[in-house]
Amino acid sequence: MKEKTAYLISIGDELLIGQVKDTNAAWIAEQLTGLGVSVKKIMAVQDTESEIIDALSEAVAKVDIVITTGGLGPTIDDITKKTFAKFLNIEMEYNEEFYNKVKAYVEMRGGDIKEMLYNYSYFPKGTIFLKNRVGSAPGMLFSKNNTKIISMPGVPPEMKSIFVEEVIPLLNKDNSDFHIIKKTILTAGELEAVIADKLKDIVNDLPKNMSFAYLPNLGRVRLRLTARGNNKSKLEQLIQIFSLKIHERIGDLIFGYEDDTIANVVGKILSENQLHLATAESCTGGMIAHFVTSISGSSAYYKGSVIAYSNEIKEQILGVSHKTLEKHGAVSEETAKEMVSGVLKALNCNIALATTGIAGPTGGTKEKPVGTIWLAVGTKDRIETLKLQLGKNRLKNIETSTVLALNLLRKFLLSKK
Amino acid sequence: MKEKTAYLISIGDELLIGQVKDTNAAWIAEQLTGLGVSVKKIMAVQDTESEIIDALSEAVAKVDIVITTGGLGPTIDDITKKTFAKFLNIEMEYNEEFYNKVKAYVEMRGGDIKEMLYNYSYFPKGTIFLKNRVGSAPGMLFSKNNTKIISMPGVPPEMKSIFVEEVIPLLNKDNSDFHIIKKTILTAGELEAVIADKLKDIVNDLPKNMSFAYLPNLGRVRLRLTARGNNKSKLEQLIQIFSLKIHERIGDLIFGYEDDTIANVVGKILSENQLHLATAESCTGGMIAHFVTSISGSSAYYKGSVIAYSNEIKEQILGVSHKTLEKHGAVSEETAKEMVSGVLKALNCNIALATTGIAGPTGGTKEKPVGTIWLAVGTKDRIETLKLQLGKNRLKNIETSTVLALNLLRKFLLSKK
Repeated sequence: MKEKTAYLISIGDELLIGQVKDTNAAWIAEQLTGLGVSVKKIMAVQDTESEIIDALSEAVAKVDIVITTGGLGPTIDDITKKTFAKFLNIEMEYNEEFYNKVKAYVEMRGGDIKEMLYNYSYFPKGTIFLKNRVGSAPGMLFSKNNTKIISMPGVPPEMKSIFVEEVIPLLNKDNSDFHIIKKTILTAGELEAVIADKLKDIVNDLPKNMSFAYLPNLGRVRLRLTARGNNKSKLEQLIQIFSLKIHERIGDLIFGYEDDTIANVVGKILSENQLHLATAESCTGGMIAHFVTSISGSSAYYKGSVIAYSNEIKEQILGVSHKTLEKHGAVSEETAKEMVSGVLKALNCNIALATTGIAGPTGGTKEKPVGTIWLAVGTKDRIETLKLQLGKNRLKNIETSTVLALNLLRKFLLSKK
Repeated sequence: MKEKTAYLISIGDELLIGQVKDTNAAWIAEQLTGLGVSVKKIMAVQDTESEIIDALSEAVAKVDIVITTGGLGPTIDDITKKTFAKFLNIEMEYNEEFYNKVKAYVEMRGGDIKEMLYNYSYFPKGTIFLKNRVGSAPGMLFSKNNTKIISMPGVPPEMKSIFVEEVIPLLNKDNSDFHIIKKTILTAGELEAVIADKLKDIVNDLPKNMSFAYLPNLGRVRLRLTARGNNKSKLEQLIQIFSLKIHERIGDLIFGYEDDTIANVVGKILSENQLHLATAESCTGGMIAHFVTSISGSSAYYKGSVIAYSNEIKEQILGVSHKTLEKHGAVSEETAKEMVSGVLKALNCNIALATTGIAGPTGGTKEKPVGTIWLAVGTKDRIETLKLQLGKNRLKNIETSTVLALNLLRKFLLSKK
C-alpha cells in the first residue's frame, strides 16, 4: 500500500497577524509522520468562507487526509462549521444532546450564554463526532471524494486530546503498513558546509527511499536520516547502517542523538565520573552556567560559577595574576588558563571550564577583533585551550561559544578516560 | 490607496515532519501587519520543484507581496534557487563576487569546500540581492506580474537581519496611505487576568478602528494597542491618548515600551546612577547574569556574579553564615539577604541582587514546595526581599524568577531616588 498524504489547515486571523504562533501544525505534523502519513503542505488561512473553501478544495483534490484546527469556538466570529456544511453541500442541523451537555457545563461555571449556545449547537448534518475530553467543542469527521476531513478546535490541549484519543485510532484502523523511520545525529564544533563535504559520498549513496538533511544552529548541526517504506525492520536496518557509516566518518563531531543536548551529555559524563565542575565565565556572561543548570539534577555535579566581568574580579576572586593581565590582556590564552586554575581553587572543584573574549558588537582591536574568544578546560594536572574567531553578533557569539566550550569540556572528559 | 496583501511561504521538509517549528512565519506576519500589509495566507511546503512552483503560482495570482523563507543553504538538498529561476523563466548565472566572498569566509574558519561552493554561487540572472549581514546566504528580490517576490534564508537571525535592514525600507518606499500604528506597553510582575480586570473599562471604550491585545510571557505581559486608518496623525493621537490612560491606571507595572527589555531598562538606570551591580544566583543558575550581559556595554555597570549552586560556596565565597543555613535553610529570606551582603563585599560593588529557591521539578518539601523562591536586592544600607511561589516547571521557574528579580531591582532603584 502506498504512503498516505495529508494537508494541515490552521484557521484563524490571529495566526496571520503573527499574534499567535501556530504550534498545533508542527505537533500534528510530527504525529502524522510517526504514523507513516506524509504531510504535503501546512497552511494558515483567514477565518472567512472563501479562504476556507479554497483551502479545502485544494486539499481534497490532492491528498487522502485533511486536518483543520481552529475556528470552532462559541464566539460570534466563528463561521467554520457553516463553511464546512456549504463545502460538503449538506445542511446544518440542531443537536439537542450537545446543547444540553454544554448548558450543564456552562451553568456549573456560573455562566449565562443561552442564545450563543443555541447557535453553537448547530452542526453539519451527519457529522461524526470526535470526543473532546477537555473542552466543549468536539472534533468532527467528514469525507468527500475519498478524502477524510478532520476538524478540531485550535486550543492546544483540546486538539491534542482529540488527536491522541480519537484521531490516532481512526487513522491506525485504515492504515497501511507504510512506515517512516527517523534518526537524528547531533554534532558540535564544525560548519554545516564542512560536514556536508565530509559526508558527500555517503549521502550520494543513499537509496531512493532515504533522505538526509542538515539543520544548523549556532555551533551545532543536527543531521537527520529518514527512511520510508513498507518493511519496518528493513528500514530500521538501513537507518542503522547509514548511521554507523556517518559515525565512522565524523564520530569525533557527534555528541549525541535525538533529544540530547550538549549540557545533558556533559552532565552524564560528569556524574558517571563523580566529578565536580566549576566555571569561570567572562564573555559568555553566565550562559554556560544557565545551560548546565537547565538540567534537572545538575546540583549533583555542578558547584557554581564565578562570572568575572571585570579584571578586578579576575584578579581578586580567581587569582589571575596582575602581570598576566597586563602582559597578555584579559582576552588571552594565559588568562583563560589562570581562570581555570583559579576557579578550581576558589570553588574547590576537580574540573573547570573558563571563557574570556570579546562578544561584541564593539570593543575589538586590530590584534583582537570582535569575536576573538579563548576557551580553557582543565584539572589541576592538565589544561587545554581553544581559540575561536566568531562574527560580530553579540548574542550569537555568546551562545556559540557556550556550546563550543561545553563541547571542549566533553572532549576533554572523554580523552581523560 | 488600499491595503497591500501578502503570502508567506516557508520552504523545507523539516517543517512538514514537525521537527522544526516555523517561528519565522509568525514573526514576519507580525512585522508585515505593523507595516500595514495584510497577510492572507501562510504556507509551509516541501522542498521540491513542483510544490514550490505551485505555491508561487497561487501567490503571484492573488497578492502583492510574496515572502519565502528557507531552502537557501549550501548543501546539496537545496533546489530553491533553481526553482525560482524556472518559475521566473530566467537562467542561472555564476556570481564570482559571491564565490570569492564566501570562500574567504569559509577559509578563515579552516574549511575546504570548493566544489560545493562553486555550485552555491549560481543565482537566477538579474537577481537583486538583499544583504545578509550575519550569514552567507543573501536574500533575493524578484518580481512577476506586479507581485514582488522576496526570498530569504530560513535561519532566524539571518532572516530577521535581512528583513529589518533590507525588506522594511523596500516595502516602506512604495507603501500606501493606509497606516497601522502600534504601541507596545511592557509590564512585569502581574498576571494577565489581573491586568485585564484593571483595564476593562478602558479597553471597552476603544473606538472601532483600534484593537488591544495581551501577550503574556513568563513574568511579563506585553500590551499592544493598534489603530488602523488613513489619517496617520489622528491615529498617533488616538494611540497616545489610550497609552496615557493605561499608564495612569497601571504605571507601577510598566517597565518600558516597544523593544525595551527588563535588562536594558535596569542597565540604563544603573548607568545613569553610576552604580556597579553584582549578583549572587542560586536557583536562577546564571540566567540573571546572562540577561544582564546580553546588553552590549553592560561591562560598564556589571562587575559579575557568584553562582552558588552549593552551600559550601554560599558560605565560603559569599560569607552566608553556617548558622543561618542550618537554622533557616538555603531557601530562606535570611539566606537571600546574607547573599546580597556577601556578594557586595566579595565583588566590591554598591548594589546587589540575589536569588535562592527550588527550581524543580523535584526537591520540594511540605514547607517549601517546588517553586518557592526568595529574591533579595540591596545596598549596604537597605535590603528588600520578595517571596515567589511559582509552578513545577524548571525552565519556566528559572526565567520567571530572573525577570521578577530584575523587576525588583528596577523598583528598588527607582524608589531610592
